[in-house]
Parts: sequence; structure tokens; C-alpha cells
Amino acid sequence: MSVSKAMYELGSKRSVIRDLFEYGKKRAEVVGKDKVYDFSLGNPTVPAPECVNETIRDLTQTLDSISLHGYTSAQGDADTRQAMADYLNKTYQLGVNKDNFYMTCGAAASLTITLKAIVSSNQDEVLTVAPFFPEYAVFAANAGAKFSFVSPDYENFQINMAELESKINEHTRAIIINSPNNPSGVVYSLDTIKKLAALLEAKEKEYNSTIYLIADEPYREIVYDGVEVPYATKYYKDTVVCYSFSKSLSLPGERIGYILVPDEATDSKELYAAVCGAGRSLGYVCAPSLMQKVVAKCIGQTGDINMYLENRNLLYDNLTKMGYSCVKPDGAFYLFVKALEDDADAFAEKAKAHDLLVVSANSFGCPGYVRISYCVDKDMIERSLPAFEALKKEYE
Amino acid sequence: MSVSKAMYELGSKRSVIRDLFEYGKKRAEVVGKDKVYDFSLGNPTVPAPECVNETIRDLTQTLDSISLHGYTSAQGDADTRQAMADYLNKTYQLGVNKDNFYMTCGAAASLTITLKAIVSSNQDEVLTVAPFFPEYAVFAANAGAKFSFVSPDYENFQINMAELESKINEHTRAIIINSPNNPSGVVYSLDTIKKLAALLEAKEKEYNSTIYLIADEPYREIVYDGVEVPYATKYYKDTVVCYSFSKSLSLPGERIGYILVPDEATDSKELYAAVCGAGRSLGYVCAPSLMQKVVAKCIGQTGDINMYLENRNLLYDNLTKMGYSCVKPDGAFYLFVKALEDDADAFAEKAKAHDLLVVSANSFGCPGYVRISYCVDKDMIERSLPAFEALKKEYE
Repeated sequence: MSVSKAMYELGSKRSVIRDLFEYGKKRAEVVGKDKVYDFSLGNPTVPAPECVNETIRDLTQTLDSISLHGYTSAQGDADTRQAMADYLNKTYQLGVNKDNFYMTCGAAASLTITLKAIVSSNQDEVLTVAPFFPEYAVFAANAGAKFSFVSPDYENFQINMAELESKINEHTRAIIINSPNNPSGVVYSLDTIKKLAALLEAKEKEYNSTIYLIADEPYREIVYDGVEVPYATKYYKDTVVCYSFSKSLSLPGERIGYILVPDEATDSKELYAAVCGAGRSLGYVCAPSLMQKVVAKCIGQTGDINMYLENRNLLYDNLTKMGYSCVKPDGAFYLFVKALEDDADAFAEKAKAHDLLVVSANSFGCPGYVRISYCVDKDMIERSLPAFEALKKEYE
Repeated sequence: MSVSKAMYELGSKRSVIRDLFEYGKKRAEVVGKDKVYDFSLGNPTVPAPECVNETIRDLTQTLDSISLHGYTSAQGDADTRQAMADYLNKTYQLGVNKDNFYMTCGAAASLTITLKAIVSSNQDEVLTVAPFFPEYAVFAANAGAKFSFVSPDYENFQINMAELESKINEHTRAIIINSPNNPSGVVYSLDTIKKLAALLEAKEKEYNSTIYLIADEPYREIVYDGVEVPYATKYYKDTVVCYSFSKSLSLPGERIGYILVPDEATDSKELYAAVCGAGRSLGYVCAPSLMQKVVAKCIGQTGDINMYLENRNLLYDNLTKMGYSCVKPDGAFYLFVKALEDDADAFAEKAKAHDLLVVSANSFGCPGYVRISYCVDKDMIERSLPAFEALKKEYE
């Protein structure tokens, strides 16, 4: 083969989630769209807030073409970065400024750039906490790092601190956390964040090294019942925040987000420069210019999160009543349900026979569970309930 | 330092071009904006064709939010890819289809993805032809390949075939060409492309290997006097086209382009899959969704290229009359002028003393030349002529 085998394999094996989604589309042609209950994808279904399209139209009418569609600096438009800083300072009392921000093409870009900026040898290790978004392994590999993960805290889906402690060594360069979490929907509590910070500080001292905490936060604003998501930079100084507007503004296709490197982080200026270098190296010239201006205007707004909340309640209440067991999600739009047998793959297959498409969490580092995405039509959830009931009966 | 030294260095040393541009902005504050003649940047100055903003406004009013701003497939929206195929088939009689296209975040992304898809070992080599865009070296390094280049054909700025032949070896995986060329403005002739194809075919046979030709073509439509840019896939089957709409539609900030992998290329299906894998690995989830729909609608249109043509003529006619020597550019928006002394850096410094900001081509692999970007206001060119005259006099 004349091409990279590793890239060929990565490109030709579709993810479990994509496979299921494609199956669902074909199955719908056979039994009818209303008879397939597809809970596979994490695509926002709430429309973008009105601000988005209004700002887009307004900009095309008021701003000249070169300013609107031209290159911004590699770090991003200065006004946009200032808007990011202002919003975070107001909301979380941070004390950041525009030079702490690097605008990106979304969360995946934020992560690949940050990892490439930090990792410098193939001895370096990147850790995460299960359950986790499977692409983390791909992104760590791209940076040339070893990747491993801490097994789940099955009780609360917080962080298994004892195992984390045992897995950190002198090669550990970064730990990725994701809260609100995909796939568990859990928000890491203030207590968890404080314990994590204390552990990492101790380990930095022990190894006389820097361990960056990478807070991957695309779901920060998708939370329910007034739950607070602690802002990690306030508790651990070596935190880098990777953010995306995909979920908060329902713009996943537009690829817009940022990396925040706070001043208090170790080697902050060097890390920021390395982020710029990594962005350049990976081919990111600047984040999309029109969308940079849109998010500057619409930051702080969200789509109608109440729609996700209603879905969560409907699904959680009914499934637990039927006897399914799952942690009540504080955020994101996933319900993480214990499979009714040890083998989650087999369980997901049996669910498929009822035209219930749920994702086995084996690839999320969490055997025995399935992910149910409830960013779907409420109607579909209602129609699906008898199928969940029948599936449960099958195991009795 | 707790970060990658290589990325830190890449991010902290600004390019010569950026440096000059920043200098120009500061200098303008001192002597006045109309007294600084900044020919440093390659930013389109012609507005995007009306189609762009009209389509954007129209889409925000007619398409639902999820279809407009949601994820597309990783390869890109199917209708967009079909529009790319239809346009190229009609214009160049190619016979491609939507499955030959992978939509990207612009030319830099097209190149980093393609190189990562092809390169599989640190023995692999990537070649290009001087003068060349300096970021090629950065992109090849990111893919893990060795990078080298063929020295310029100083007579016509076509390709020095004898040197190219001597530089190809069993490790050569890809050769990047850029026509119309940045910085020379030259279009590779049909004769050049045919000779190149014959050479590469012979070398593939000699080494029993595949050598992909990567045609980097962001300037394809920016050509003058009816010059034709041969479509390389028609002459050499192992060609991959990396395209961007940055220049043709004057959208450099929006990051939209594509990779074309034709069916006739060796291991075409595997290469396409590797492109998908590399895109995933580098953190490109999909190309910006709104812009995918915009280019599908506006493909084939351009900004008013006549403005660049007028600038070219004004600058070329006057500089050659003064005694400067340069090849007449067939395309792009650069004039490539022989420095008036051997050391182009020193010449560019002397130009700076006249507030003429021109880029030494040392970093383009072409010592002794400077690049003058004429994507500027025509007025500025007219005002700058006495300074060019004075600079010339200094050397007499």
C-alpha cells in the first residue's frame, strides 16, 4: 500500500457510533422512520439562538468583505478574544485577558493543538478518566504520546483518585478531563476538582515536573437543576481550557472554539507560543473569520436547554421506573445506563432487535454500560418507551 | 521548559512576512499610512463576489438551523462534493464524482492532511520546487517526512528537471507543486507538466514505488491574458489536488477548500480512506458547514480579477522601465523581482529605508530575489513608484 497504514486504518474503520447511525438510516427505509429509535449521535437538536443568524445577516450587510472574510491573526481576531475574556471574567471572576486566548476550529482542534504543544517525546504520557470520549486516544497518538486511562468510578462516575494516583509517573505530561461528561452526563463536583488539584500539585512536586490539566468543556453550559461546573483554572493553576461553541450555540458544523492558557500556568508564555506553533504545524491558519465575529456577539447565549431537560426527565423517569439503573445526569445530553448483561455489546445488539439504537460504552473505557443520546425529538422518546419495556422484559 | 520546544520555536519565531507587516503598521503611525508602501502580505484585496454574501443571507433565511450549522459528514456535505465534481467535469472534462472529494478547512489543511495520509515512516521524503511557499517545510515536518527542494530555474521559473531527477530516490513519496506559483507568479506550462509526468512515471518504474504529485492550486483561477493552467490529473495519474477558495472567492479567513483524490491514482480508495483518517487524527471534524454550502453555490465565480491585472501591469511596466528585472507573472498576485545586489536580505533592508516593504525570497528557497505582493490598492502602487525609482538610483 502506497499510503500510511495507520491513517488508512483510522479512516476506514468507522466508529461504532457512525456505524449504528448508518444502520438506523437503512433500517428506517425498511420499517419506517417512526419505528426506529436512534439514540446514537451527540448532535445538538436545539436550533441555534436567534442571535446567530441575525448576527450573520447583519455582518454581511454592514462589514466590508475583506474585514468579514479575510484572514484574522493566527491567534484570532483581537475583538473576539477580548469578548471571550470579558465574558469569562464577568461570569467566573477569572482575571484573564485577550492574550490568554487562541481561537480554534472547535473542540477537536483545541485538543490536537494543545496536546501537540505539550508533548515533546514519545516517552510522554497523556492520561484521561473513563468513561471518556474515544477520540482522545486518536488525538494523543497524533501528538506522539502514550495514552492510558483511569477506570471508572462506577458508583458516581466522579474520578477514581486512588487509581489516578497510581497511574501518574514522571512521564505524565497532561490529564484530560471532560465535565459535564460525555458519555456519563455527570458533572465533576467541587470536591472532586479540589481533590484532583491537590493530587496533581503533590505529583508535580514529587516528580519536579509540570502536569497540565486539560479541561475539555464543550458541554459547560448544558447543565440542569442549577448545578455548577467548577472553573478548573481557579483550583489548579496548570489548567488549560479547551472550549467549543458546538453545543452551547448549536453550531457543531461551523467549527469554532478556543484554547485558554491562563497567566498563572507554568511556562504560560511558552505554552501559548507552542499552541501557536502547533496550530501552524497542523495546518490551522486561523479559526473561521465570520464565525469568530458571531461568537463574539452571541457568547453567553444558548439554544433552548429546556428541551434537553425535558428529554432527560422523560427518559430518566421512565427508564428507572422500568428497572433500568443509571446515574441521573447533571449535564450534557446523554443518559448512561447499565446494560442488563455484562457484555454491553451483546446488550446493544439485543436492543437493536427492538429498533433501539444505543451505543455500547466499551470504546469509552467503560464496559457494561450503554450511552443513550437524548438530543432527539421528544416524540421519538415517547414512542420508544414500549421498546425499552420489552427489552427489559426479555431479561426477566 | 514544560512544553514542546519545537512547537515553541515554531510559534515564537514570526515569519519574515509577518514581521515586515507588523513593522509597516508601526512605521505608518510615524510617517503616515500613505507614505508606507507595504507589499508584504498575500491577502486578497478584491471583495468576495456578491454571490457569497447573498447565499449566506439566503441560507440563514431558508434552511433550518440544524441543516445549516450542524455537522456534515467528515468528507463533507454530499451536495457540496457533487457540485465540486460537476464544476470540474464541466470545466476540465475530468470524469470525477463526489466520492473523489474531501472538503477541508482551506489549503493548509488540505496539505497537512494529504501529507499525513501519504507519509508512513521517517525515511519518507517530500520534495518541492523552488521558489516555494515556506510553510511546506512545516507541513512536511508535521507528517514526519524529510523535506528538500529543487533549486530554481532562474531563467523561466519553470522546473529544473535535471536536478529534480537527481533528487528523486527510493524514499520519495510526494512532490508538491504550486502553479500559478507563489512567489514567482509563473504558471507551469503544458510542456513542463508533460515532462514532469514522464519523469515521475519513469521514476515510479525505476523504484517500483508510488510518487504522488500534490498540486497545490489556490491560485488556479487568478490568471491573466488567457493563460491556461494544465489540470495535472490529466497528465499524471498519481496526482492529488489540494484546492482552496481563499483566493478565487476572496475568503481566506473562512477556511474552505478540498482534496481531490482521482480514481486513477494508485491505491485511490486506500489513499482516500487515509485522507479521512489523517483529517480525523489532526482534529478536523468537518469543513465549516455554512461555507460548504456557500462554495457549492458560488463555485466558478471569482472576485474582480481585473483589479489584480491592472496592478500587475502598472507595477510590471513601471519597474521594468526603471531597469528592474523580473519574469512577467501569468497568475497569482506576486511580482518576483531580482534584487539589485546578491544579498536579497540586504536589498530588502535598503528598500525598507524608502518605506518599500518587499519580502526577501531567501525563505522561499530562491536567494537573490524579492517578492512584491500586488494585491494592494492601485493608489499605493502609484504612490510607491518614486520610491522604487530612488532605490534603483541608489545602486547606480
